[in-house]
Amino acid sequence: MQATRLSLFAPATIANLSCGFDVLGLALEGVGDCMHLELTERPGVEIRKVSGMDLPLEADKNVAGVAALALLAKSDYKGGVAIEIDKRIKPGSGIGSSAASSAGAVWGLNQLLGSPFSPEQLVGFAMKGEELASGAAHADNVAPALLGGITLVRSTDPLDLARVHCPKALHACVLHPQIELKTSDARKILKTTIPLKLGIRQWGNVGGLITGLFTEDFGLISRSLEDGIIEPVRSLLIPGFQALREKALEAGALGFGISGSGPSVFALTHGPEKAHKVARALDEVYAGFGIPFEIHVSGISRQGVRALDSTPIIT
Amino acid sequence: MQATRLSLFAPATIANLSCGFDVLGLALEGVGDCMHLELTERPGVEIRKVSGMDLPLEADKNVAGVAALALLAKSDYKGGVAIEIDKRIKPGSGIGSSAASSAGAVWGLNQLLGSPFSPEQLVGFAMKGEELASGAAHADNVAPALLGGITLVRSTDPLDLARVHCPKALHACVLHPQIELKTSDARKILKTTIPLKLGIRQWGNVGGLITGLFTEDFGLISRSLEDGIIEPVRSLLIPGFQALREKALEAGALGFGISGSGPSVFALTHGPEKAHKVARALDEVYAGFGIPFEIHVSGISRQGVRALDSTPIIT
Repeated sequence: MQATRLSLFAPATIANLSCGFDVLGLALEGVGDCMHLELTERPGVEIRKVSGMDLPLEADKNVAGVAALALLAKSDYKGGVAIEIDKRIKPGSGIGSSAASSAGAVWGLNQLLGSPFSPEQLVGFAMKGEELASGAAHADNVAPALLGGITLVRSTDPLDLARVHCPKALHACVLHPQIELKTSDARKILKTTIPLKLGIRQWGNVGGLITGLFTEDFGLISRSLEDGIIEPVRSLLIPGFQALREKALEAGALGFGISGSGPSVFALTHGPEKAHKVARALDEVYAGFGIPFEIHVSGISRQGVRALDSTPIIT
Repeated sequence: MQATRLSLFAPATIANLSCGFDVLGLALEGVGDCMHLELTERPGVEIRKVSGMDLPLEADKNVAGVAALALLAKSDYKGGVAIEIDKRIKPGSGIGSSAASSAGAVWGLNQLLGSPFSPEQLVGFAMKGEELASGAAHADNVAPALLGGITLVRSTDPLDLARVHCPKALHACVLHPQIELKTSDARKILKTTIPLKLGIRQWGNVGGLITGLFTEDFGLISRSLEDGIIEPVRSLLIPGFQALREKALEAGALGFGISGSGPSVFALTHGPEKAHKVARALDEVYAGFGIPFEIHVSGISRQGVRALDSTPIIT
């Protein structure tokens, strides 16, 4: 007998990872949303409740709804699904709030339907939610949310994903300054052309980061966490960015950069102790800024979206 | 007792590997130059003989001489070295002719001096030869020639190199159309800016190629061997490029592209049989062109420059 209800955890994600703009991302272990899904006889998607944030309940205006509708459109299932979202990741934070909702919705629905779709197909459905949220169907948050670990989006058209090896010791620290910064606005300020020289440096760094991850060479990982293209522009929108970077590196971070399109910033570290040390350093910098903020320290989630322990009710 | 003479094999190399312009390269197993080095009491570098090609014998005008001089300048050795080069790789072929001479000279000299320098330092010396040859001190040929296998040049300033895993089954086929095409000219026709979109696609492919190599995922390797930036411009200088590509892929190549700055083109394959099949296909295309050409089929050299079996004379 198939469960008809499911509770799940949908992780926050860090996209770009400095050099890997639009292609790299990772899933956090301890930061994310909870969602509850239930199959319904009535066709379509019902967003039954969103707690924690003020988000639309109309399925076609809610990222989880749009993603679930994209899945249903490709499925031969005749019923529908009801979704409750317990939102812990603030929209516009830059750690994949919309991606968590989209990924959670399609992962949970796929589970309830007996897993007819592959993780890659789920990424495709979840990208429809991203398109609603930011105007661009990017995959660099939904891919790690669904596949777990560190993911590469080699191409979005056609969609081509790969998992990159993630050393166990890798940890992340995220600071979320609670200012508003929309992904769509953060994309608008980017130049549409770049010097070839900076491009070469960027793909050298992407190559270095991925090689460093596979060989667990933390020195190479650290040297490769560099972004000479996007960060110099976007960091201007983030109060205290340079001071935060300086203190994070002083505290032992492997690298420091903008999480997704910001305003959150992230540091990667070798081990949890370093991540906590970096967190304290970032906290000190921001304490005097008068901007509300949150800091998260987390390992990397191997799994991505996962069912919560509570046993689903079996009918 | 230390040998004072040494014979060595310096491999040809394929730089760029489609998506990895200026950062990726690999060393060929069966294609390369032979060199003979002998320590001399007289300081400095003497190019005693170059057979096979008409190249300058003045040390400061010969890439091997310049590279060896760069090493000697950092060494406390008071004597000099005499070099004979048996040139098998034609200069201007695009498979690292100058890099083989530079790499062979510094590797051999380092051996004779008791290996005071690291492979990374040798790459730095050999880059001086590259600077003489092409006006730019690039490392994407000398790095694989010296380190062997597939190498990443994350950065040239400061120099930062890494080895990428190379699946044993990987083979290469190279076609060298014997037309003249100078590296410096092939660089001049490149645009100095690129669309950000193409940059993203390129670093997605670099990430995909490196991930594919580490995970031995030949499908991913194949899909990642794509270059939307350099190849569309440079391929115009290579007669029959599109026909060659088409036939190479039809014959089962994982990918096809320009070797370094051309005019040589290369295909990578899964296994030697496919490489021979691709070679026959390329041969058929070029047979009717009236341009002299050579085709090489080769495995990837794990070692890079290596001593030849003949026992060096011990004094």
